[in-house]
Amino acid sequence: MRYELYYWPGIQGRGEYVRLALEEAGADYADVARERGMGAMMKMMEASGTPPFAPPFLKAGKLLIGQTANILLYLGPRHGLAPKTEAGRLWMHQLQLTIADFVLEIHDTHHPLGPSLYYEDQRGPAKKRTAEFWKQRVPTFLGYFERVLENSGGPWVAGRRISYVDLSLFQIVAGLRYAFPKRMKAFERRIPGLVDLHDRVGSRPNIRAYLASDRRIAFNEEGIFRRYRELDG
Amino acid sequence: MRYELYYWPGIQGRGEYVRLALEEAGADYADVARERGMGAMMKMMEASGTPPFAPPFLKAGKLLIGQTANILLYLGPRHGLAPKTEAGRLWMHQLQLTIADFVLEIHDTHHPLGPSLYYEDQRGPAKKRTAEFWKQRVPTFLGYFERVLENSGGPWVAGRRISYVDLSLFQIVAGLRYAFPKRMKAFERRIPGLVDLHDRVGSRPNIRAYLASDRRIAFNEEGIFRRYRELDG
Repeated sequence: MRYELYYWPGIQGRGEYVRLALEEAGADYADVARERGMGAMMKMMEASGTPPFAPPFLKAGKLLIGQTANILLYLGPRHGLAPKTEAGRLWMHQLQLTIADFVLEIHDTHHPLGPSLYYEDQRGPAKKRTAEFWKQRVPTFLGYFERVLENSGGPWVAGRRISYVDLSLFQIVAGLRYAFPKRMKAFERRIPGLVDLHDRVGSRPNIRAYLASDRRIAFNEEGIFRRYRELDG
Repeated sequence: MRYELYYWPGIQGRGEYVRLALEEAGADYADVARERGMGAMMKMMEASGTPPFAPPFLKAGKLLIGQTANILLYLGPRHGLAPKTEAGRLWMHQLQLTIADFVLEIHDTHHPLGPSLYYEDQRGPAKKRTAEFWKQRVPTFLGYFERVLENSGGPWVAGRRISYVDLSLFQIVAGLRYAFPKRMKAFERRIPGLVDLHDRVGSRPNIRAYLASDRRIAFNEEGIFRRYRELDG
């Protein structure tokens, strides 16, 4: 089956967590808005009786699945990227939902007054929120995932087999390095396990090939992870 | 099986979406932190090899399940509160995750600079974020759910049978009425379907009995929905 992924064509954003899973799995997929334009994506959103609230969404045969973590819940066990047991699947999904919460807080560092105003109109509040984010939220979230990784017995979050959660944690580390190079550099000694996991994900053959291809969109200031010098402390 | 729900004892918060499902289902459950204190909750968080990031979490036999939407994903088909088909379950979960996104934005109206600072230290930004929230985000989110309800053929979001998503939408309408009585009153004529759904959920025997009992915690200014007069426009 050829999947169709629908996501904004110019950013990694939330679509990237799905792309990484499809790429690691070697799945056949079209990145529709990049290949056929935004019109195809908008048409699909309006035509469905069960419309997604927002991209990303995935067409898998007759199914149209929205919400990043929901898409991964569907793909995971089908492509060896999640345990087969109910307990294992729920646990991976729980971690992915916690990553989704963190992603929203990352986004809010540059958009504390809401997603519908420009960054330029909320620079002061963004500075305050970012300071709080690095003081309180990064240690809490990344400290949690570091502990979860330790508890797992390794080498991956689910234990012996890689899962979509590992791929998403790779993206979190890569994104924080892009957006906050100075802050992240200082913080990384507190999360040696996650840094090592990032490197191991990045050196897997399918992921390495993907990152070197033009299918990987570069980080930029339209996405979740934005590099604004004044926020890097 | 007697479930154990773990959540902060003084607020409805995110635990309420789970409570409403358990109550509608007539399930047997303990609300642990309310009955046995916070110590029991903290102990459970620390003892688990698969610890939740935060409450709420549910103990169901040997399973310990965290993240509100994940708990409902588990409970739904077991208690007739979600379709049995994979497509139906994914669709309900997708809607619940969209509700979770909305809940986070509701929370951010009074905490735009982050969850670790007091409201009193972010009143100015809260006013701006709330104005934007009512101008842009409420119409977008509630307009979406109103359309989804229309598309379903009714009377419920999943069609003929009630689901946990209907219970959560009840809570959203009730919460917005509590937190923003003036703004919500003006807005409700744009979402007649959701207002009607709220009333139908509230008059179901198990929900009505729950709302009248002391198991329902009253809305208050420690939860997600807070009534601050200066934010009500």
